Amino acid sequence: MNDDRIDTGRSETEQAIMDATLVALAKHGYADLSIKNIGTEFEKSTSLLYYHYENKDELLLAFLDYVIDLFVATIDPCADDPDAELRTFVEHVLPPKHPEDGGDVEPVAPPGMNEPELFQRVIFELRTQTIHDDAYRQKFREMESYMIDTIATLIRREMDAGHYREMNAEVMAENLMAFLFRSLDVRVTGTRPESAHAMRESVYFLLDNVMPPGDAHPGDIATADDDCGV
Amino acid sequence: MNDDRIDTGRSETEQAIMDATLVALAKHGYADLSIKNIGTEFEKSTSLLYYHYENKDELLLAFLDYVIDLFVATIDPCADDPDAELRTFVEHVLPPKHPEDGGDVEPVAPPGMNEPELFQRVIFELRTQTIHDDAYRQKFREMESYMIDTIATLIRREMDAGHYREMNAEVMAENLMAFLFRSLDVRVTGTRPESAHAMRESVYFLLDNVMPPGDAHPGDIATADDDCGV
Repeated sequence: MNDDRIDTGRSETEQAIMDATLVALAKHGYADLSIKNIGTEFEKSTSLLYYHYENKDELLLAFLDYVIDLFVATIDPCADDPDAELRTFVEHVLPPKHPEDGGDVEPVAPPGMNEPELFQRVIFELRTQTIHDDAYRQKFREMESYMIDTIATLIRREMDAGHYREMNAEVMAENLMAFLFRSLDVRVTGTRPESAHAMRESVYFLLDNVMPPGDAHPGDIATADDDCGV
Repeated sequence: MNDDRIDTGRSETEQAIMDATLVALAKHGYADLSIKNIGTEFEKSTSLLYYHYENKDELLLAFLDYVIDLFVATIDPCADDPDAELRTFVEHVLPPKHPEDGGDVEPVAPPGMNEPELFQRVIFELRTQTIHDDAYRQKFREMESYMIDTIATLIRREMDAGHYREMNAEVMAENLMAFLFRSLDVRVTGTRPESAHAMRESVYFLLDNVMPPGDAHPGDIATADDDCGV
């Protein structure tokens, strides 16, 4: 196993199946995905896929759980420095500051995936299945609610510590997520890439101008003792 | 022809084909759509479909043009009262204020479509094709750019008239669209309906609290003589 990767508690074989599924999905898209072309990307026998998963649907739901675990691991409600945690999280989704140099923070992507935007595309394509499939809808619902609750918790911790002004943390979390979703959307669909850069400005307007009080003390950080339960 | 419908300049036959396509798409979804099931919803002979369109792809691109024309017709950069125009437009996309009574403004939907959300779902499904299809990407790019430019023009006209405070109209338009897209998305996917209501609050926070200056004169309106070219 590569030490750089986020540990989501999968066995080595499960991890290898997830990797193969990701590559196959990125290559073929959801509509043309089959166990056969997942098998092509899998270094071991295709029969192992059937040993672990009943069929393609079951494998894809397990893959969605994996993708969600990866995404959820990018933000921690109990982080030592909530403001810094929010700033790191938004950089996982926003386009690089300077496209030519790639920016400072790598977008979320498993190692071995040379183009992180492919990973975002895979998530986006899986998400469109929510229209037709209750199981997908439920899993995305849980992920989005977790993300918004976690952002609200981080905001509330900085409010309690006096570093953010008083505000409705849930509404602010919804706004941040709306900007991040729009950024993800236009990057993946390619409809209006300049909107992703506008979203970067909007996110930092909230973080830099709306959220801090006039008399911020940038040196202080909220303590991890604050309630960070989600 | 029904007088209530938005006139997009189609002939009666083209209009009937568009209606049939909409119903077939809503019933079967994009993946399972065929000329055959469009024909089933079409009151005249299926051969007429082939007379007007070479194949399914050509028909669907014509349908996308139709849908875009309908959407574009919901906002006019030269409206007499730009602020009122913006407020009417956002109500086409946001969820009803009181779900139980349906709110004041009907969401955009052609007559004969009992559930306006089906129309939003059809747009959403077509938009996912942008990932794989350049022609779709280009058309959605034009539509989104037109929408954002039009909103920015309406904002600028109210700024020039002294009814909105000085701001970057393009950035504000991008923010409004991000909130509206998120509302559309969660309603169609069903992932987090409560986010659509949060987006309603965010949109009206911008319209009611951020955009007006302290000393607004609600009686005055911007004049149509202002530059409203898009």
